[in-house]
Amino acid sequence: MLAALAPHAGRAHVVGLTGPPGVGKSTTSSAVVARYRRQGLTVAVLAVDPTSPFSGGALLGDRVRMGEHAGDRGVFIRSMATRGHLGGLSSAAPQAVRVLDAAGFDVVLLETVGVGQSEVEVAGTADTTVVLVAPGLGDGVQAAKAGILEVADVLVVNHADRPGADRTVRDLRAAVALGARADGAWQPAVVRTVATTGEGVGALVEAVAAHRAALGETGLLERRRHRAAREVEALALDAVRARIAGLGGGDGLVRLAARVAGGELDPHGAAERLLTALEPQPSAEGLSERR
Amino acid sequence: MLAALAPHAGRAHVVGLTGPPGVGKSTTSSAVVARYRRQGLTVAVLAVDPTSPFSGGALLGDRVRMGEHAGDRGVFIRSMATRGHLGGLSSAAPQAVRVLDAAGFDVVLLETVGVGQSEVEVAGTADTTVVLVAPGLGDGVQAAKAGILEVADVLVVNHADRPGADRTVRDLRAAVALGARADGAWQPAVVRTVATTGEGVGALVEAVAAHRAALGETGLLERRRHRAAREVEALALDAVRARIAGLGGGDGLVRLAARVAGGELDPHGAAERLLTALEPQPSAEGLSERR
Repeated sequence: MLAALAPHAGRAHVVGLTGPPGVGKSTTSSAVVARYRRQGLTVAVLAVDPTSPFSGGALLGDRVRMGEHAGDRGVFIRSMATRGHLGGLSSAAPQAVRVLDAAGFDVVLLETVGVGQSEVEVAGTADTTVVLVAPGLGDGVQAAKAGILEVADVLVVNHADRPGADRTVRDLRAAVALGARADGAWQPAVVRTVATTGEGVGALVEAVAAHRAALGETGLLERRRHRAAREVEALALDAVRARIAGLGGGDGLVRLAARVAGGELDPHGAAERLLTALEPQPSAEGLSERR
Repeated sequence: MLAALAPHAGRAHVVGLTGPPGVGKSTTSSAVVARYRRQGLTVAVLAVDPTSPFSGGALLGDRVRMGEHAGDRGVFIRSMATRGHLGGLSSAAPQAVRVLDAAGFDVVLLETVGVGQSEVEVAGTADTTVVLVAPGLGDGVQAAKAGILEVADVLVVNHADRPGADRTVRDLRAAVALGARADGAWQPAVVRTVATTGEGVGALVEAVAAHRAALGETGLLERRRHRAAREVEALALDAVRARIAGLGGGDGLVRLAARVAGGELDPHGAAERLLTALEPQPSAEGLSERR
């Protein structure tokens, strides 16, 4: 089914939205969705959340905040849990984006929680990446430290009515000016918003559109090739991970790990044994059995 | 060389320290190190930082804050860059911990930036995991959302002199009570600190020691087996990733990704071709060539 979808992909504008917890991503998403709807565009929101057994309420809360779009058939909202799948985030998100793209949405909003390397990289595979920061906490140096300046196409200082917002905007603009990106063409925009009131959300959506225009067809294709490469690699690694999980006996991960923890075996040796155990037996039967 | 180190590993108390940017991790680390030194213990600090081309100053700033320990031979401080290595974080950090452990340090402090899945999981492989939150931003719901309650053995509300600290402590205690952990034995402690003045750092170090005592030898071994399993798996996946990067031609990742982006090939099909291309040729020569 996914194979059948491939020829239809590539029409949606994939917009990544990331930032630390508490910065107001859900409220911003909801306000952005409202803007797109007013422009007559359909939007799919994919929220990638690290879940925990007792955070159901928090996730539900997010969806409730999206409640204003609940009856709108031009808006599709889905949360993806990634708990316990360190590698899963990188393969599952692009797959879901592909499906939503093929389903014909004009915009796919890929929302990830967290400022970790993986969340930033997932958001960074979008056509346009929006990074939210809060005043004070998210100043230029901290932003640079978290590596977000490199992936951000649009930087948003949300809660811009709070103290410290001016300084944060100034710091981010200075950091952007300092770290001109390798591709040169696009200087990340810095936008102020108060998502709860909708202030600045129009400017945010305009900045996203301006970035898409600046990318052009060549830039877009380049981003999509990059995204495809990450997706294919992640799928291949997922498959390897599944094969590792399926290995039992003396060359299974549990037994090897116990020997490493006990100091009998070094981890590199254990990894080599694991990889050897994964290889198909050198017979024609062995090769066909593995499917 | 790493193989030779294996028998010496396992003496240090490995303490993970994580939390969002701006929460005061470096200052807390420095204060914790000072405490341990007063107890006559040697400490190695391993700071895992996602770096960027223009964040050198920020990292340097961290190390400068650690300056009070610069002349102390009982303290070793090293930063690890993980930029561009989505998978690298999980394999490189445990390896470095192993080396520091073998070098004879009493405590290895593994400091990771960010609240992303991977950072939390890396810190979560420590014997004892300390999670820092800031007042206000890091309340119970947000903490649960970021998945940190599940990995935290000790929760620290830093900047506890700021407004909202009482509420955050209360929220976290409520969240901890609500989400009694599967292993049952240990209820995460919630500690208030003002790392800049050293307030509460004694209580933090005591809570870490109490957790170590509660783990016992069985619990410690279990954690170390878990850590070893993650390390071995990550090393195996790194090796696969390197092999993928080494593939050229029509079955190389770049060419396959271009075909996926162009809609000629679906990503699952591309991943399968990649994995097939990685398999050794079914001849003895092929097998030996791969080394």
